[in-house]
Amino acid sequence: MLNLGLIGAGRIGKIRAACIRQYVRDTKILAVTDPVTDKNDLKRWAEDEGISIIYDDYQQMLNDKRIDAVLICTPLNTHTIIAIDAIDAGKHIFCEKPVDKSIGEIQMIIDKLKGKTLKFQVGFMQRSDHNFRALKKAIIDGHVGKIHTVKLISRDPFPPPKSYIESSGGLFLDMMIHDIDLLHFLTDGEVAEVHAYGACLIDPAFAEFGDVDTAIVTIKMKNGVLATIENSRISASGYDQRTEVFGDKGVATIGNDIDNTICIGTEKGFVSERPEGFFLERYMNAYIREMNSFVDSVKKDQPVIVSVEDGLKNQIVGIALTISCNEGRPVSVDEVV
Amino acid sequence: MLNLGLIGAGRIGKIRAACIRQYVRDTKILAVTDPVTDKNDLKRWAEDEGISIIYDDYQQMLNDKRIDAVLICTPLNTHTIIAIDAIDAGKHIFCEKPVDKSIGEIQMIIDKLKGKTLKFQVGFMQRSDHNFRALKKAIIDGHVGKIHTVKLISRDPFPPPKSYIESSGGLFLDMMIHDIDLLHFLTDGEVAEVHAYGACLIDPAFAEFGDVDTAIVTIKMKNGVLATIENSRISASGYDQRTEVFGDKGVATIGNDIDNTICIGTEKGFVSERPEGFFLERYMNAYIREMNSFVDSVKKDQPVIVSVEDGLKNQIVGIALTISCNEGRPVSVDEVV
Amino acid sequence: MLNLGLIGAGRIGKIRAACIRQYVRDTKILAVTDPVTDKNDLKRWAEDEGISIIYDDYQQMLNDKRIDAVLICTPLNTHTIIAIDAIDAGKHIFCEKPVDKSIGEIQMIIDKLKGKTLKFQVGFMQRSDHNFRALKKAIIDGHVGKIHTVKLISRDPFPPPKSYIESSGGLFLDMMIHDIDLLHFLTDGEVAEVHAYGACLIDPAFAEFGDVDTAIVTIKMKNGVLATIENSRISASGYDQRTEVFGDKGVATIGNDIDNTICIGTEKGFVSERPEGFFLERYMNAYIREMNSFVDSVKKDQPVIVSVEDGLKNQIVGIALTISCNEGRPVSVDEVV
Amino acid sequence: MLNLGLIGAGRIGKIRAACIRQYVRDTKILAVTDPVTDKNDLKRWAEDEGISIIYDDYQQMLNDKRIDAVLICTPLNTHTIIAIDAIDAGKHIFCEKPVDKSIGEIQMIIDKLKGKTLKFQVGFMQRSDHNFRALKKAIIDGHVGKIHTVKLISRDPFPPPKSYIESSGGLFLDMMIHDIDLLHFLTDGEVAEVHAYGACLIDPAFAEFGDVDTAIVTIKMKNGVLATIENSRISASGYDQRTEVFGDKGVATIGNDIDNTICIGTEKGFVSERPEGFFLERYMNAYIREMNSFVDSVKKDQPVIVSVEDGLKNQIVGIALTISCNEGRPVSVDEVV
Repeated sequence: MLNLGLIGAGRIGKIRAACIRQYVRDTKILAVTDPVTDKNDLKRWAEDEGISIIYDDYQQMLNDKRIDAVLICTPLNTHTIIAIDAIDAGKHIFCEKPVDKSIGEIQMIIDKLKGKTLKFQVGFMQRSDHNFRALKKAIIDGHVGKIHTVKLISRDPFPPPKSYIESSGGLFLDMMIHDIDLLHFLTDGEVAEVHAYGACLIDPAFAEFGDVDTAIVTIKMKNGVLATIENSRISASGYDQRTEVFGDKGVATIGNDIDNTICIGTEKGFVSERPEGFFLERYMNAYIREMNSFVDSVKKDQPVIVSVEDGLKNQIVGIALTISCNEGRPVSVDEVV
Repeated sequence: MLNLGLIGAGRIGKIRAACIRQYVRDTKILAVTDPVTDKNDLKRWAEDEGISIIYDDYQQMLNDKRIDAVLICTPLNTHTIIAIDAIDAGKHIFCEKPVDKSIGEIQMIIDKLKGKTLKFQVGFMQRSDHNFRALKKAIIDGHVGKIHTVKLISRDPFPPPKSYIESSGGLFLDMMIHDIDLLHFLTDGEVAEVHAYGACLIDPAFAEFGDVDTAIVTIKMKNGVLATIENSRISASGYDQRTEVFGDKGVATIGNDIDNTICIGTEKGFVSERPEGFFLERYMNAYIREMNSFVDSVKKDQPVIVSVEDGLKNQIVGIALTISCNEGRPVSVDEVV
Repeated sequence: MLNLGLIGAGRIGKIRAACIRQYVRDTKILAVTDPVTDKNDLKRWAEDEGISIIYDDYQQMLNDKRIDAVLICTPLNTHTIIAIDAIDAGKHIFCEKPVDKSIGEIQMIIDKLKGKTLKFQVGFMQRSDHNFRALKKAIIDGHVGKIHTVKLISRDPFPPPKSYIESSGGLFLDMMIHDIDLLHFLTDGEVAEVHAYGACLIDPAFAEFGDVDTAIVTIKMKNGVLATIENSRISASGYDQRTEVFGDKGVATIGNDIDNTICIGTEKGFVSERPEGFFLERYMNAYIREMNSFVDSVKKDQPVIVSVEDGLKNQIVGIALTISCNEGRPVSVDEVV
Repeated sequence: MLNLGLIGAGRIGKIRAACIRQYVRDTKILAVTDPVTDKNDLKRWAEDEGISIIYDDYQQMLNDKRIDAVLICTPLNTHTIIAIDAIDAGKHIFCEKPVDKSIGEIQMIIDKLKGKTLKFQVGFMQRSDHNFRALKKAIIDGHVGKIHTVKLISRDPFPPPKSYIESSGGLFLDMMIHDIDLLHFLTDGEVAEVHAYGACLIDPAFAEFGDVDTAIVTIKMKNGVLATIENSRISASGYDQRTEVFGDKGVATIGNDIDNTICIGTEKGFVSERPEGFFLERYMNAYIREMNSFVDSVKKDQPVIVSVEDGLKNQIVGIALTISCNEGRPVSVDEVV
């Protein structure tokens, strides 16, 4: 039995807890801490989930010897400090993405981990998704051959609220960072240079905060691969998560998941379902699989599937893209590091 | 909280228990009884599932006042006697399909239930499947119009072991009975006459027991609808569960579920996934939904989604088809009743 | 250069002529005869098509030594008499389907051809269609393995006019005969027994003439294959021509052709095109290919792709189905011959 | 009857002639001229095609008063001089794409045409293709709404010979120019700025001539639309011609045409056809439709579907992309004009 401590019981923290209870074998959340949630609400929720201990702050939790690993599900600006303390306390860590806005802070965690056997996994869940795993497998199995180009499309079903936009870090660091992670995952490569075009086509609210709601991006990798990423904060036809990898032997594509296979033909044509829901529905399978993978990594002392170094690489590319979009020029990754 | 008693802890009984623990809210299995399973194995399994009581026989369980409903997951030839006793004991019943081989026995249960408010649901799970529900909705929404024809295809990925064939009741009553249930579900109609061609194309073992492994069937319904059903005990390309409903306004089709959306294009063409797994994987969503539906029916005193009368209708048609196949002639349902 | 004589310049005759002019190399229609069409209209049309001779009757045409082969595109009840005369005159023959309503008459043509090297091809064009050819190739290439079942669906976009129904010979001999031909083509087998359910679900006009507008049919072949055919005289979602062949190694399916590959996704789902047009549009590729094939057979003295013996087999099965539908019982093919 | 003169009887010229003979009503090629093709070969071919006059040079042809319009199918570097002379001679012009490598030369033709009623159509045939027309119609019908992004993919089945590469003008002006034309066609907009990444991933031969074989491109349009184009000179899975237009109401996509609809399911998955052939097969429908459209424009004095101004716009963007790829920076279209 692996004992976990949950730090932060907001939306994602609660989802992590429910996942673990239902789907992760021989693992339990022993304690939770959340300074923000109402005490009574937290108590009631913890009881329902079968979590027996509520700590006033995460420091107390780190002192609990029974706890093997912590889940950091707090706001972004607290990730590094908690992570550093947790490493000092000898806890394995699962940390929501991104690790930190600042490259320097992420580097600090990497330095801190050096020489230790602690596991640190970042919550880029798409590497654990059934479709992306099948795509990776197709590449490994040689169906694509040497990769020439990668295309990633990610479109949200509807834009976030204004309050979210303000503190999101911008489209490239908040949303496209997932596609950047997938690009790293699929190609096993390093980004050399990026170029971004962004625009406010949906809502001027994005522009107010210096952000964009639509972006098309091209990326040149050190191994010669060329990639394009398209992001949109809205999609009338539903959450759009498609990818294509093209190489000298073939092309592998993943399409959207749909709730059922019905197709209705009438005099107007043949209609099939649009992808319903948003990331929580679409990637529930991935949330479950990545948590099982983290638990396995800890128990069997295996490498994690998304390391803090992966998180660092993603952040660097996201920052380069933000600069490129703002300054209207290609940006080399070397410029950012 | 609804308290259930599980009668029979074989393969399907264990699946029912796991479903209820993971996915059915405010419901628990309080007790289990199984005269066949090894006592120690049963005890260990019950502990893992959090089932606190093991009764020596189902009679004891029926005497337990705390138990609201029982799940009958025993061999087919015991269904009716247990059901009658359970009704006498005032328990709601969820019974695996088919209710009984004999029409007379099923009728006995119906008679016994008369005037009582007890729920009796039969485990034809496909009515609860996401694809068939979408198909039913398309019909109700008027996309198909007045139904002219229905086509049902059901092909197993591999044939059952010889031991199973012997006691299965034959392809029509063991396998096609699910398609018959769907036909009733989709059309809200009554069968008038049936005609069946069957053959042993896969394995002569079926013929040894007077059974067939492949069958194509046509059905004339009282409301004018014409239907075809095709069953095969084997399918190289995987578990095949497709249906088409055709009417004066349009056609609605459901295809197979697949594990992921990958499509790989090479010089040999474009390859997508075949449907993996068998009924347990394919219909897990339906097992969960039908159990929740049963619990809801009990708690809210609502009609069940598959009644014992539905089970009777299915059995009658299955018997008519068996006669038709054996005697090489169309058989009217009136002949069987 | 092969010289053809066209007997009958109705709708299908005109299509044959246009096909030959545009798409058949080193072949020309030298003469036409049509006792029914208005003389001036015929003359004008022949000029447009570059046909230089108009004969008053087909006997004159048969006397023209320059003519190598004739196309019999006249009403059904004249096929046999013209065919017999043409054989006597030593002409190769392309004859529209079906050869004749009567089995005896078709047999007469077969007898007449005995010992002669004349080619006689019947216009079951679907054997020349790109989709059905791909299906046949998949079978020959072994992808399906030993065939277990065949499913044929054929639904017209709209019913024929009342005048057509009256003299059509009924759904089985007019429409389903094409599916019967495909069944023979795909399986290389002989039909043993058939069973048909028919109904008037579209228009009572069909019933007036003792005909049906919807039929589902099951067929048992001598080699063990089981087949189903579904026909409807109407289809809101367009001309529906799909087939599935299932065997021990796999399943091969052909879907409908559509005019373009557009797919439009909106909040209502994803819409693709329905199959537009009717047989003339759908099978134009087949009309062209079968005529080239006939010309090749004549020039190179090769077997035709659809022989008069094939036509006979189809007719026998069509008659058996008509009897089965009328009398409500399975009918053995031996009963008809 | 419209009389045409064909200038240049190379591969494309011959295809134009065959198209016109088979598929363009009330139009004929009266004369041909080709200084390069062997006289005897030309004569034989002209006879086969029913072209009665062979002129020694195009000047003679332009003097023939019976000729209404000329088709310029000669090498690129002769287009402008012939066009200017043909305009002087009062002939309508159909000119293969691109009009000229030099913007100045194209502008000269535009100036020359000013005040005249002569038609000048450029052979960007994809505007006449069934799929792209359906896509344009979907946009016009409002299914996409306000366009946000456009994605164009064009991948050739195999690379051109070395001799072709040398004089092609480079990937952007030879191949991607078609996608640029489609972008203009689909959006009715003007390009503001472009950015290109190119690479030699297939064959170093391209690099020898300062060319690339793979390119991903992003384009910012004056109306706010963002576009990506991907081109590859090779594609193992066949000629790849797909496009997606995404807007605030929905998304419209066109996929590849395939030769037939077969799908074969075995234990390895479900296989469908790859797109066979290259541009001549894929766009034959477009060659036919664009020529009919040109003839209609001349006869009915209607605007042509692709004007010389369209050709100019495409050329400007192609040049901007070439600069961007070479210099590694975004290039504004204003910089090129």
